[in-house]
Amino acid sequence: MSGQGLFISFEGIDGSGKSTQARLLADTLRAQGHEVVLTREPGGSPGAEEIRALVLQGDPDRWSAETELLLFMAARRDHLERTIRPALAQGKIVICDRFADSSRMYQGLSRGDLRAQVDTLHALMIGVEPDLTVLVDMDPAAGLSRAKSRATVEERFEDFGLELQEKMRAGFLALAQEFCDRFEIIDGNRDIDAVSLDILTTVQAKL
Amino acid sequence: MSGQGLFISFEGIDGSGKSTQARLLADTLRAQGHEVVLTREPGGSPGAEEIRALVLQGDPDRWSAETELLLFMAARRDHLERTIRPALAQGKIVICDRFADSSRMYQGLSRGDLRAQVDTLHALMIGVEPDLTVLVDMDPAAGLSRAKSRATVEERFEDFGLELQEKMRAGFLALAQEFCDRFEIIDGNRDIDAVSLDILTTVQAKL
Repeated sequence: MSGQGLFISFEGIDGSGKSTQARLLADTLRAQGHEVVLTREPGGSPGAEEIRALVLQGDPDRWSAETELLLFMAARRDHLERTIRPALAQGKIVICDRFADSSRMYQGLSRGDLRAQVDTLHALMIGVEPDLTVLVDMDPAAGLSRAKSRATVEERFEDFGLELQEKMRAGFLALAQEFCDRFEIIDGNRDIDAVSLDILTTVQAKL
Repeated sequence: MSGQGLFISFEGIDGSGKSTQARLLADTLRAQGHEVVLTREPGGSPGAEEIRALVLQGDPDRWSAETELLLFMAARRDHLERTIRPALAQGKIVICDRFADSSRMYQGLSRGDLRAQVDTLHALMIGVEPDLTVLVDMDPAAGLSRAKSRATVEERFEDFGLELQEKMRAGFLALAQEFCDRFEIIDGNRDIDAVSLDILTTVQAKL
């Protein structure tokens, strides 16, 4: 997006290590003297965190994919207004764990078949894409076993089988082709330092 | 909308008496042996009531008009799926205190200038209009003094001046012209029984 800062999102299947990598990147850039805002979706602003709680807790069928999509969009709009845009306007680097591409994948592909609705809602109410999207690409079986080993109180989205992980990985790779101007695919099937060095090199080229 | 039942919404400015009239209509139709679901927006289903609490409580600037619109749409989608559609499919009469026309007026005209976004979101995610919309038309000054006399814990939308009430009344009348096939304008500046008799006559014609 326009603005003096740099807007970086991290995407990937569950267990890809993207949250860890987003945090490592933030730490390294801060150590280099950059002002960094590390944030995440859903959430990232006080109002959006309240919406997050509403969306992620409770029964899997608590919300339809359509209602869920609208709640995620409301959270994203608040996050954009209250956290992302102000930080970019101050020249900061914003690192966001998940952004609109996660809606394209989850409500668009796995939870629902709503890709067209996601795109229309995004154009109408959000209208912003990251300057750079880091896709941490991961073997679906390895990602699944990592995701399962984590304890979490937010269970609504955790019931993933291998078939779904494979579908999601293919979906993210297709999305990276569709938005090839801003996506960078990073091989996440390596040790954590090798992955983070790759990501840092990619980001430095944008700074 | 299609379905065996009848979908009636009530609209009007604050203090117009529409909620009282919706309840009286429900009572009368039930006494006549009809199965009636009396509901309201925002809210009307367990999930939508939780979203209602998020939207209506707190500081007036807690949400932007855009975020608020997305939250109302999420609540409406849930309400439609869980309460309105099932009741209509069972042949019931659904009486709803506010529906999409309130978004057209509030986020479209008073809280924001978002009428185009309201219409696009409605077409994309809701797609349903009432069979009959009763507009309880009310003198703005009288409505304002009634609204102010009510104690309420939901203060976010209550800070209305007379100028805004006049603008809203004109907006609702314009909306009634725009959707003249389903709107019926009822003069609310009379005693409660005269108003309710008028409404009942209008509804009987649709049954």
